[in-house]
Amino acid sequence: MPVNLTLLIEGEEEIGSENLEAFVAKHRAALAADIAVVSDTNQFARGVPSITYGLRGLVYMEVFLTGPSHDLHSGLFGGAVPNPANVLGELIASLHDRDGRVNIPGFYDDVLELSQAERDMWAGLPFDEKAFADGLGLTVLSGEKGYTTLQRRWARPTCDVNGITTGYQGPGAKTVIPSKASAKVSMRLVPNQNAEKIAAAFEAAMKERCPANVAITFARHGLSPAALVPMDSLPMKLAGQALELGFGKKPVFMREGGSIPVVGLFKRMLGVDTLLVGFSLPDDRIHSPNEKFDLDCLHNGARTAAALYERLSHLK
Amino acid sequence: MPVNLTLLIEGEEEIGSENLEAFVAKHRAALAADIAVVSDTNQFARGVPSITYGLRGLVYMEVFLTGPSHDLHSGLFGGAVPNPANVLGELIASLHDRDGRVNIPGFYDDVLELSQAERDMWAGLPFDEKAFADGLGLTVLSGEKGYTTLQRRWARPTCDVNGITTGYQGPGAKTVIPSKASAKVSMRLVPNQNAEKIAAAFEAAMKERCPANVAITFARHGLSPAALVPMDSLPMKLAGQALELGFGKKPVFMREGGSIPVVGLFKRMLGVDTLLVGFSLPDDRIHSPNEKFDLDCLHNGARTAAALYERLSHLK
Repeated sequence: MPVNLTLLIEGEEEIGSENLEAFVAKHRAALAADIAVVSDTNQFARGVPSITYGLRGLVYMEVFLTGPSHDLHSGLFGGAVPNPANVLGELIASLHDRDGRVNIPGFYDDVLELSQAERDMWAGLPFDEKAFADGLGLTVLSGEKGYTTLQRRWARPTCDVNGITTGYQGPGAKTVIPSKASAKVSMRLVPNQNAEKIAAAFEAAMKERCPANVAITFARHGLSPAALVPMDSLPMKLAGQALELGFGKKPVFMREGGSIPVVGLFKRMLGVDTLLVGFSLPDDRIHSPNEKFDLDCLHNGARTAAALYERLSHLK
Repeated sequence: MPVNLTLLIEGEEEIGSENLEAFVAKHRAALAADIAVVSDTNQFARGVPSITYGLRGLVYMEVFLTGPSHDLHSGLFGGAVPNPANVLGELIASLHDRDGRVNIPGFYDDVLELSQAERDMWAGLPFDEKAFADGLGLTVLSGEKGYTTLQRRWARPTCDVNGITTGYQGPGAKTVIPSKASAKVSMRLVPNQNAEKIAAAFEAAMKERCPANVAITFARHGLSPAALVPMDSLPMKLAGQALELGFGKKPVFMREGGSIPVVGLFKRMLGVDTLLVGFSLPDDRIHSPNEKFDLDCLHNGARTAAALYERLSHLK
């Protein structure tokens, strides 16, 4: 090999990487490197090799409400007691304004806005909005006013409810006023937003908006910052050359809306940037039944990887 | 017996009385009567024998939302697609205004307001609001502005969420944008509100407030009107005399917030009013573990029943 290569293999990413941070901390010296390479990303589309230069971060919260100390009959008590299921709806509704912006004080304070160069570059990507919507069974897309679909997915922070549990969930009717209601709510972060600050702002807003006779508590299920790799850096240039060798055409630069927490971890703990050079396709159905990986992605990807290690030998 | 007595015994009330209406329709002639007697109500408190002269009705709806055709990854899609869990929160929040009034156009149009005489009578009932709140684990009660707790429970219509199902409900986190979200929502009705009209108004309001790219459908799990028995009628006077004989003291007049659908059914199909003369106590824990019925309620109730049939022989 023309470079010194350290392989870090982890098998816990899908269950929250509970041991990774301690492992990296313990092996800081052995993991020292000029650059990291992670291939957990997509090509933009079939035949469009890509370097991903940005990822969103994540703040995943759970909100727990308690009203009356036990479930109540909605006839005997309805109208005279706080209903935590209704209150939960009100709290959720308060999370966005009419323009689709997240309605939490301070939420956008640190958001890094897109440069005109990035806007122009993304506008040139072969993105078929109608096919994208069709694939989701939607006639019209939604989102924050003033941004395109790619901008909303890659460069704008979000606030989505991922699950709600309260009251009776079986078939038919039960006239219960539930004692408890809870929601899982996650926020995707963009570069420069601070996960700890956003989590605290979320909790403060929810507390302030919750009526005094409903108790509110929180759990934090995961905080990770967004990642952004400078596009004009030498490693990016070398990765671009490797992809061109592997796929026979110049790659595009893209971001992704998901999170790869290890990228932030490497940056924070090791001071190392990560090249996100992945070979899969948007229709690979990752994590789903009938997951696949195309053979030409395998072959072009293997050629790219070989070229990449050769190219990275020119880093210093 | 000094009266002709027809016993109608039903064993399906707790599972929705699916066969009762057809049975009553078929036996209309045999069920003809001057008055009906139902003892499915409470004393106001221990030692306060009561005649219940009003019940609330019920409209029980379920709302089903569908956004994207399948669950989506909140990182890859969040911010660009409608999230039916968030939309459900917005619809629920829209159900009340800041004064705790139900925010559905036309909802209060037919509501029968309380007379001053009723307000005065209720204000004289031995109701301990602090003990009531304490028993529910609440420091402060909630409800529609401008009404007392008894008025809110007995004479004002409500809109309560009874259950919500959407997304991931297990422990920890899952970054899903759910395809579907649903809520069970029931409204307690007061005299003169029309259940069919309220159900239609609810559906129209929810449809109008739902974004175009989220599909909305409904199920109706039960519609029954409120009931009100004239307090100054001869049957009421006779029932009052019977209670005084049975318990050794004059009864109070009260309403209840729950629904006894057969009362409306008798009125609608047979033209017969119902006397609600019940003997249980608010702490009997009906439908709950450790349900009980006090022996003095049994004895006083039996004396009342004997007196009631004698008194009702004076109806004509």
